[in-house]
This record gives sequence, C-alpha cells and structure tokens, in this order.
Amino acid sequence: MDTPITIDLYSDTVTKPTPEMRRYMCEAEVGDEQLGEDPTVHRLQDMVAQLLGKEAALYLPSGTMCNQAAYAVHCQPGDEILMDKTAHPLHFESGGPTPLKGILVRPLEGERGVFSAQQLEEGLRKQDRYNPRSRLISVEQTANLGGGRCWPLETIREVCESAHQHGLATHMDGARLLNAVVATGIPAHEYARAFDSLWIDLSKGLGAPVGGVLAGSHEFINEAWRYKQLFGGAMRQAGIIAAAGVYALEHHVERLAEDHQNAQRLARGLAKLPRLFLNPKEVETNIVLFDVTETGLDAAQFVALVKQEVGIRFSAMGPMLVRAVTHLGITEQDIDETIQAVGRLVRGKILAYTGTTGSHTGAY
Amino acid sequence: MDTPITIDLYSDTVTKPTPEMRRYMCEAEVGDEQLGEDPTVHRLQDMVAQLLGKEAALYLPSGTMCNQAAYAVHCQPGDEILMDKTAHPLHFESGGPTPLKGILVRPLEGERGVFSAQQLEEGLRKQDRYNPRSRLISVEQTANLGGGRCWPLETIREVCESAHQHGLATHMDGARLLNAVVATGIPAHEYARAFDSLWIDLSKGLGAPVGGVLAGSHEFINEAWRYKQLFGGAMRQAGIIAAAGVYALEHHVERLAEDHQNAQRLARGLAKLPRLFLNPKEVETNIVLFDVTETGLDAAQFVALVKQEVGIRFSAMGPMLVRAVTHLGITEQDIDETIQAVGRLVRGKILAYTGTTGSHTGAY
Amino acid sequence: MDTPITIDLYSDTVTKPTPEMRRYMCEAEVGDEQLGEDPTVHRLQDMVAQLLGKEAALYLPSGTMCNQAAYAVHCQPGDEILMDKTAHPLHFESGGPTPLKGILVRPLEGERGVFSAQQLEEGLRKQDRYNPRSRLISVEQTANLGGGRCWPLETIREVCESAHQHGLATHMDGARLLNAVVATGIPAHEYARAFDSLWIDLSKGLGAPVGGVLAGSHEFINEAWRYKQLFGGAMRQAGIIAAAGVYALEHHVERLAEDHQNAQRLARGLAKLPRLFLNPKEVETNIVLFDVTETGLDAAQFVALVKQEVGIRFSAMGPMLVRAVTHLGITEQDIDETIQAVGRLVRGKILAYTGTTGSHTGAY
Amino acid sequence: MDTPITIDLYSDTVTKPTPEMRRYMCEAEVGDEQLGEDPTVHRLQDMVAQLLGKEAALYLPSGTMCNQAAYAVHCQPGDEILMDKTAHPLHFESGGPTPLKGILVRPLEGERGVFSAQQLEEGLRKQDRYNPRSRLISVEQTANLGGGRCWPLETIREVCESAHQHGLATHMDGARLLNAVVATGIPAHEYARAFDSLWIDLSKGLGAPVGGVLAGSHEFINEAWRYKQLFGGAMRQAGIIAAAGVYALEHHVERLAEDHQNAQRLARGLAKLPRLFLNPKEVETNIVLFDVTETGLDAAQFVALVKQEVGIRFSAMGPMLVRAVTHLGITEQDIDETIQAVGRLVRGKILAYTGTTGSHTGAY
Repeated sequence: MDTPITIDLYSDTVTKPTPEMRRYMCEAEVGDEQLGEDPTVHRLQDMVAQLLGKEAALYLPSGTMCNQAAYAVHCQPGDEILMDKTAHPLHFESGGPTPLKGILVRPLEGERGVFSAQQLEEGLRKQDRYNPRSRLISVEQTANLGGGRCWPLETIREVCESAHQHGLATHMDGARLLNAVVATGIPAHEYARAFDSLWIDLSKGLGAPVGGVLAGSHEFINEAWRYKQLFGGAMRQAGIIAAAGVYALEHHVERLAEDHQNAQRLARGLAKLPRLFLNPKEVETNIVLFDVTETGLDAAQFVALVKQEVGIRFSAMGPMLVRAVTHLGITEQDIDETIQAVGRLVRGKILAYTGTTGSHTGAY
Repeated sequence: MDTPITIDLYSDTVTKPTPEMRRYMCEAEVGDEQLGEDPTVHRLQDMVAQLLGKEAALYLPSGTMCNQAAYAVHCQPGDEILMDKTAHPLHFESGGPTPLKGILVRPLEGERGVFSAQQLEEGLRKQDRYNPRSRLISVEQTANLGGGRCWPLETIREVCESAHQHGLATHMDGARLLNAVVATGIPAHEYARAFDSLWIDLSKGLGAPVGGVLAGSHEFINEAWRYKQLFGGAMRQAGIIAAAGVYALEHHVERLAEDHQNAQRLARGLAKLPRLFLNPKEVETNIVLFDVTETGLDAAQFVALVKQEVGIRFSAMGPMLVRAVTHLGITEQDIDETIQAVGRLVRGKILAYTGTTGSHTGAY
Repeated sequence: MDTPITIDLYSDTVTKPTPEMRRYMCEAEVGDEQLGEDPTVHRLQDMVAQLLGKEAALYLPSGTMCNQAAYAVHCQPGDEILMDKTAHPLHFESGGPTPLKGILVRPLEGERGVFSAQQLEEGLRKQDRYNPRSRLISVEQTANLGGGRCWPLETIREVCESAHQHGLATHMDGARLLNAVVATGIPAHEYARAFDSLWIDLSKGLGAPVGGVLAGSHEFINEAWRYKQLFGGAMRQAGIIAAAGVYALEHHVERLAEDHQNAQRLARGLAKLPRLFLNPKEVETNIVLFDVTETGLDAAQFVALVKQEVGIRFSAMGPMLVRAVTHLGITEQDIDETIQAVGRLVRGKILAYTGTTGSHTGAY
Repeated sequence: MDTPITIDLYSDTVTKPTPEMRRYMCEAEVGDEQLGEDPTVHRLQDMVAQLLGKEAALYLPSGTMCNQAAYAVHCQPGDEILMDKTAHPLHFESGGPTPLKGILVRPLEGERGVFSAQQLEEGLRKQDRYNPRSRLISVEQTANLGGGRCWPLETIREVCESAHQHGLATHMDGARLLNAVVATGIPAHEYARAFDSLWIDLSKGLGAPVGGVLAGSHEFINEAWRYKQLFGGAMRQAGIIAAAGVYALEHHVERLAEDHQNAQRLARGLAKLPRLFLNPKEVETNIVLFDVTETGLDAAQFVALVKQEVGIRFSAMGPMLVRAVTHLGITEQDIDETIQAVGRLVRGKILAYTGTTGSHTGAY
C-alpha cells in the first residue's frame, strides 16, 4: 500500500496555486492570444520584459519550450551550444535541440553547474569545415544539479564577454533566476544584461500552475513567436493561466526568502544526521543535495524508502545524490518534521538494513 | 480610430470561458501533470479516450501540437503525409512536420476538403529509393477551408481502408469533429474507428480556453508523450485548464447544434444579399464561406471594410473567400444584425465604391 | 531471356568514357582533394568557374549533391524552395532538402518545366508566423520532364529579378545547361548571370563518368564545402575522375549539337509513326518525349515491350509518356534503326496486342 | 617560400594510385551504377561482402558517407550513438549525424580509443521520455586517435554482446580494419561478425583514390541505398574508381605489413631522440603518435617547423600530440631519413629556439 505523501520536497514544480491565485485566475480578462488579443498575457509579458530589462517577452506553456524556442532562434543545424554538463537540457529535455533542429550540445566541466570563461574558451571548436560551429552558450540560473548554486554576476559577465568576443550568442535558462535575485539582492535585470535571451519559470518557486516567459530583443521575440507556433505553444485564452504569473510576480517573489531559510534549516539538520553528507554552506537557495553513500542504499532506494516509511518525498538526482527542494507548500514545521523523520530512519531502519550486511539489499 | 468589434465571427477560437466554466476551473483538483499526478488532466484524458473509443489519450496545449506529435510518432524523416490541399497543417502550422522532423506533405486535390480513396491512391509514391515513403494520411474533420464540410463516414472508411492496405497509418485532425457528430448524429467513436490516432480541440466550439486531446493506442500515446516533452508541451498543474475541457465535454457539446442553426440562418441571409455568393446547402456545421468577387473588393478588403464600418469581424480565407464562424458567443440576434449590417453595406457603401470604377480601389 | 540492349536511349547518364577520355584520366596528376592538393580538381573547378562567370566552383560526386549542397547553403529549416512541378528534386532525389534539412518545396504550375515571374509571385507565401519562409527559386536548365526545353534567357531574367526583389535567392540546376548553350548560342555565363548558384553535370551529355561542379561566390562555395564534407562528398585523389570533366569540357561540348540533330531526327521519325504522338518543334535539345496512349499500352509497358522485342531502351517518364535521350553513344544510324524498329512494332505487334481488345493486356 | 614535401607522413589518405592501379582503372568495364549496371562496382561490392562475411555491400564515395549512411539507417531523430571520445565522427565529420538526422552522440571515456562493455553500460540512458534513446554503438578499427590501436576481438565481442542485449545495434567504422587484420592475423570476417554494419576504406592504406564500401544484411544495404541517393553519393560509371578498390584488395592488403614495420622502425627511432616522447610498444599498426611538449613547441608549431625546415609532413592531432602515418608511398629509407632529419632538428634548431627561453616563441 502506498503511503500518502505528507511533505513533498520532490521539486518546486509541485506547488499548487493558492486560493488567492485561483481567484485571480478565475477573474482574468482574456482574449485569443494567437491573435495578440489577450490583455492578461500582454500584461504578464510586459511585466517580465521590464523585470529583465529586455525589449519584449513571450509567454510559453513551459520552461522547456522557452529553452527550445531560444535555441532554435539562435542556432542552425550543425551549430553547437556550450553548457555545463549538469544543465537541464542535457538531462531532462528529450535531447531537445538535437532532434528539434540538428543542433549539437557540448557539455563543459564546470564546478557545481558553473563554468568559467576559460572553460568556455577551451570548449570552442576550431572553425573549419570538419567541425560544428560554436554558436551559443547557455547558463542555468540557479544551477539545479549544482545544488541551487547562484552563478556569480562576475562569472556571468566574464563568460558572456568571452562568448560575444568569439561571436557566440548568450542565453540564460532562468528557471530559478528569481531565487538567485532574492538570495543575492542583485536585481534580475543586472543578471540579465549580458544575455541575448533569457526566461523565468512561473511554475516553480513562484507557484503558478503553467508556463514560462522568454525575453529578448523585439527581433528575437518575433522569431521566437515562429517557434511558439511551430511547436504548438500558441494557445487561445491563455490569460487564465498567465494571470497566475501576474499574481505570482506581484505576491510570490519576496517570499522565496522563506524557502531559502527552510532549505538552510533542512541542510543544517540533515548534515548532523549520521550517514548523510552535505555542506550546508553550499546551500545558497531552495535546493538541498545530500550524499547517501554511507547509508548503504543508493539514491533511488533511499528516496523510495523515505517515501514508503514516512511519506516524505525527495528525488534522486544521481546514483548517490538525493535532492530536497523547498517551496511555498513547505513550512518550517515541515522541515523540522522531515529532519526528525529522516533522522529516525537513518538511525533505525536504515542501520538495520545495512548495519549487518554493509551493503544495500536490493529490496528497493 | 478602430471600431470596436461587437459581433465576432472571426473563428470559434475566440470563445471566452463562461462564468460557470471559470468557476469549475477555479475549483479544479490539480497536481504535477509531468509526474502523472494531476487528477483533472487524467479525468479529461479518460473522458476523451472513452468518447473516441481509444485506449488512451493525452492532453496537449494546442491542436497544432496534437497534429505535430501525431505526425512525429507516425513518420520518420523522408516520409510523406497525404492530406487535402486545404488542410490546416498546410496553411497554418509554420511548415509543421517539415521543419520539425523532415517530413514531406503531399496535397491532394479533394473536393471542399474531402478526398477520395482513388485520389489517395493516385497520390501514393512509387516505392523506390528516388521517392519519399508514403506513410500517413491526415483527414480534417470538419474541413475548415471546405466550409465546415463533414467527411462522410463512408468516405472515411474507404480512404482509411485504402491507406491501411497500402501500409499507411491514418490520422484525424478532429479540431471540429464534435461539430460533425452533432450535425450528423454519428457517434464520435464511429468516426474514430478507422483512425490510428485522432484528436479533438477544446478551444474551438467547446469554448475552453486552452488545449486539445490526442487519442490512440497505449503504445501510440506513450510515444506521443516523448514529443509532448520534447516540444515543451509538458506542463505542471494543468488541471486548471484541463478542467475547462471536462466542463465543456459535459455541457457544451449538444449546444453546438445552435451554432449550426445560426450558421444556416446566416448563410441563407447572406445568400439573398446582392454581390455575395454561397450555397447554403453546403453549410453543414458552423462555418459559412462566401465569395465576394462581385463586390469589387477582395476578401481582405471586404473583411477590413466590414470591421471598420459596422464592427463585425469575419476572416479572409482566400483571395476572394470570406469566412464567418458561429460559436457560443454568438446569438441568433447577432446573426440577424450581421445580415442586416452587411446588407446595408453591400447595397450602399460597397456599391458606391465599386459601382463606378468596376474594380476595387486599393483603399483597404 | 533478356534481350541485350543495342541502342540505349534511356538517358544521357549511360554514356561511357571514350578511350581518349580514359587515357586522359589515367594520366591525371592527383593529390588529396580534401586537403586542397589535387591539381586536376582545381583545374576543373577553375574552368567551370570561368565558364559560368562565378568566383569559385566545387567538384562534387553527383548533380544531386550539387543541388542539395546549394539548397542547404541557401535555406534553413522551415524555409521554402519554389520550383516547377516537374523539377528533378521533386521526383528523383528521395525528398532531398526535406529530410536533409527540414526545407519545404512548393511546386509551381509551369509550362513544360518553365514557370513565369507571375507564377513565382503567386507562389510566394504571406510572410507571417503561420507560413514557411519563401527563400529560394530553383530553375532546371534544360527542363528534363519538359522535354529538354530551354529556359528562355528573358524568362530567366524576369523570374530571377522577381525573386531577388522579394528577397529570395536564385539557383540553377544546370544538369543540361550546356545543351541549352549549344542549342541557342547563348553563352553559359549569360544564362548564369542572374543566379546566385548553379552547377553543370559532367556525367550526362558531356560523357564523363562521375560528378558535377557547383559554382557561386567565394562565400557560397566556402559554405558549400561544409556540406560536401557533411554529406560525405569529400574524396581523396579525385583528380582521376575530375580529369574526365576537364577532358569533356575541352572536347565534348560542341558535339552536343550532334545529339540535338539526332534528337530532332528521331522526333520527326517517331512523329510520323501511327499511334505515337509528339510535336517535333518542341524538341529543342537532346530529349524526345512522346505519348503512347493510343498504342493501348501504358508507358512502362511500351518501354518494356520495345526493350524485349528489339533491344532498344527508352524510359517511362509518366503514365503515358515515354522518353528517348540522345548522347555521345548514339549515332545517326542508331536513330534510323530505332525509327524503323519502333515503326515495325507499332504497326505490327502492338497493333496485334491492342487492335482486338482495345486496351492494354496487363502482360507487361 | 614553401619547402616541397619530400616525405609525406601526414596520413595514409595521401597515397596516390600506382601505375598498375591506374592501368587497371583505365581498362575497367563500366555501366550506370545508379541503374545497377556497373559490373566493376558489383564485383567490388561482392568482394567486400565476402571478405566481411555479410550478405551485401555498397560502394560509396567516402568513408564519411559510409558512417553517415549507416547511422541514418540505424537511428531516428532523438536516438543516441555511443562511441569513444576520440572517434572520427566526433572530430572530423562536421557534426555528422546531428545536422543530418537529429541524432545525438555520447562520447565514452575509453582507453586509447577502445571502450569496455562496462563503460558502454554506464553510458546507456535511462529509458524514459526525458532521455534520448540509446540506439547504436560505433567502434573505430583501428583507433586513429588511439594511435592505430587494434580493438581486441574479445573486447569487440563483449561490447557488441552488451549492446545487443540492451537493444542497441552495432556498427564498425573499419577505415583501417585491414591494418588490424594484417597486424593480428585475425580474419576480417571474424572482426565483422558481431557488427550489424561495417565498412572498409579504399583510399587509406589500400591506396585507391576514392571511396569506401559499406556492408551488412540485404535489408540494411537496401536502406543504405536510400541514403546514398539522398546524400548525392549515387554516381554513374563509378566502375572507373571502384576498379582501384578491386585492384587494391587483390594486391595491396598483405603489403600493409610493410607499413607496420616502417611505423615500428619510425617509432623506435623517434623514441630515442631527445624531447620526443612515445612508447613504441603502443604502435600496433601504421600510426605513430608522439608528444612534443618538451620541445617547447606545440604540435602545430612542431609540424610547421619540420615541414618548413626539412620537407617532411606530419599532422597535429592534439595540442601536444603529433602523428605520423606510414603507407605505400613510404619506404624504409624514407623512415631512416625522417629519423635523421628530425633528430638534427630537435638537437639543433629546436634546441636553439627553446633552450634559452624555455618556451615556444610563437613564431610558428
């Protein structure tokens, strides 16, 4: 029998719209957005363009489509995108720009999701007819598989300057850019300045149900519209869901600080437990990664066990790496309960499983 | 100065959610649909699978994505899809399967959107290495540019049988399938039976704001999920908008009959006006196409004039062909007002424009 | 038992290298052409660039690769090429630019392979996000399925001017351009002037065994080299086969006049036979098309019968259309024998087959 | 002024046809190979099919096209090929399967070009909708950037067995397979057995000017023909160049042993020179890789200096790695002269350049 999930730290994508947000959506003024007639979609796009200091913005049904539309605008078949080896498109977007447009992706050996200008330059292809064309860099802010690490503004400036010098365009996957903004106090438009295109997600920490907003120059957004249409992202009365984005930008940004405090609290609590390893100082935003090697379970087994035994959901992000993500559905009390419940498990049941055999049992 | 649109016959895509539908959406139970945890999305998918007599269904953000995901599942690069020369993907989907997957589309010379088994067979390629592979037929029900014509069930059976005999798969773009169902009394699953995949649109006559639902075998839908993810159509708490689809299927299907009556009423009214040509007997559902050649204006000019002068919006569907579409935002009174207003125009202003010069003036 | 082919009018691609050409190939100075070190390849490329009045040229293993490399340089995925409905890439290149790069091809309703500037303009897409981008025109000189018709210089100028005005690039598939040059006396560079890229085939009337040469600006050829490499067209000591091209350009151009005289002789002879229909005045170069409807056989049956009975090979180019092509392996005497042998057949055996039943027997 | 190259160790691609091979080509019986009528092409294909123990074979204008046609037959867009990080398609084929068909390539961390079954298994993707589909492995025999290392037969069996168990197809890039055959005495068909497709190059050690031959099942080769046509690799009287392949297979296989002896002699000679580093025991076939770090020059500078000063051509295969390849144009005396000339340089001029400054001068 499945244990119901009582505390869901799987991802900030699991947030559900609040009653106020639902009410706001329900009352949204709408029109046919394909015809450019949805006032709420326009309002959302204007808010994001202004927030990011760009000329124009485009509402899309997902962050994945934001990335893919941007890649398709910047690159032609045989071009290559450079990104950190942990970046989202390499792991969660079904091959993304390769099946969609014949674009290559070269993974760079960054540090917790952040690569340097030097690493970028070492990754550039010799420009001859035997090689793909290096064409774009893609930076993920914050770095999800880097444990929610914020790209430092200085590093962003350096890699973007280097990219532009070598004739490459620059793109930010800003799925959690606003977490970085709240964590560092650096305005979004400062982070955005060096990028030719970037987007923010509405359905993660912001708590809206659907969509992301892609921003750039007028010309870029005009081209991105072609791909919105082509991919089937052009909707009709999308103001209903865009309204949640408007509401979230007005009410849910500053509260991300709470998620960060909760993540820090969780990190410190887990770090003190036996057999779990992490460095709380590396927890900069709302993501906590910890290593479970010494539990004798692998990450998938650990996640399954915790879910089954105590109804708390984490996610496995590597063979031995478990992830917890805080969000607006998680309270300080949830954090404390999590620490206690996991503590009981690693001291008790997991010890029992693994203490005698010294290795995981294959039961999970 | 723009005249406000008071009667919008542009398309059934302009329908806005009713207060009841909004309330229903607002209260929808939701979850993360990428994780398979949105109960409302599941409910919608189950309803459509049952309606169409298929094993499984998949909610997508647009009808365009329904077509493109299906084409991508059925076809490989260098394969060819056969469809009527008036079909939607040839005119409104940015090249669709060609840029997305290197698939060719061969237009057939059907009659008002409906092609025969013989035309299909004449369109098949010789199977050698010089030719693309004929792989799929795509049938649009109702045929939009065919004036909302219903594909007869017998013709469907013949073309699908022929397609299957020649090793081709069969797909229905059922954007307005439920209009055909209501108009003919033939159940949706009867129309669906011969097709390997098909979809219905929620955001046209049904009046929901966003999305379509694609149906087929379990195996087909599993593959379609890959393309939903790849195209960026995987959303999060999509139950909010899926709820409108559930509501629409429960409350807005039978009322399509009113749209058909209104379209018939409009067709008869316009047919009696001077300089406009159409055959009301060809109006089977909610689409009215009429020819404006004798007004001395082309279709784009005519549409612009009517909008400017009397605040009624049609759309231009060909050089000389104007389209009016009825939907849940249009009443019988709107129809009568439209006939009267257009009547005044064609008898008055248009006559003045064109009576002396005998040709259009380029003013629009 | 197969009858050996004694007179092969299948295509000018069946020409075999002459002893002198073989000797010339055998003695060719060669190097690694991928490294830019094959002097014979360079010489051939320089000859063709000069002949066509272009900055640079590139040797490729086939005319098909010349077309595909040019299309790939000019177009991106979702772009559209306009060409006559009879053009070679639509019928003999496996879908060509569509599987290779997601490019659409729009067939125009030209006259015997030649379309007008007006037809081009009617085929242009409205430039919005619902439509592919019209990007290139492709002109086939001479028009193979148009019966070897020469594109008039004036028509070329008009369509190219129109294309350029609308922002499209211009490409000539000059597979048989030199036939047009010899037939009309218009220099190749005059035909070439309005085209951004074009190529000539070495392995048709010129009689070389392998290859075509693509020409254009330095920038165009640099880009085309990328596709030569990508498609696997970069060879090594290609001077061996390029030498045949050099030899052919020096010795086999003017003699194309003989092929034209032979084609004319054949056309007149066939036109006088019963049951075969053609207009000898439409035979401008080395291709003769004739209609076999009245023989009671379809084209494939007619071709099979003639090959079986008298060892003469034609090709079927349409349901009822048979093609004969003259080339350096065909003498005036071959033509006379062909007319006599076919004459005997249509008067005798074919009459016997069809005279009583009035329709073809399905035996072929 | 350029020093003429007197000893060319750049690659075995620079071999020129011998007088006997030229004569054989010159006398080749030919036909139109697109029509399946070139007897010499057929003979070559039959020889290779038999040599490799496969049902059928296909002559193509380059090894690159052999790889690309095979990849295109085995994979669909969004599929992934696993190969060693040093493999040819990752470095010299312009992105190859990615722009051509939207296929991903995952580099494995093998040892000098050879990866293990375990590395293959670690590189397999989780099979869900977020991931590309692992579909094919590609093995390069010998491993060029691995210094001509032979894949051991046992390793081949293990990786192919693992690949097949996981539902992947197996392909060998056998550009220098015959070098491995001659070096190890293992028959080609033994190496070939575990592969679904493989090819040999005619224009490397075998000394033919143009082409490679791809082999596999009848069904595979039928599909490969489609890509030969599509890529523009279908030629006409290709027997002329195919003849060189026939000749080479009859006369140039066993003599590869001389190339291996020369490579071993060169390796031992260079290893004794100061400032050059290599392990002669790692030289298994005709490729010698050596490290120039201690010369104070990087590889490109070293190669340029040697060419300029003594007219010997090597190639730079990495920042500090220089390659020499022996072939039928290289004699034992050439090897001895090379050792002496390079010896003089590294003892004299290079010492002078670098002895005082301790670093390279940027002059090259």
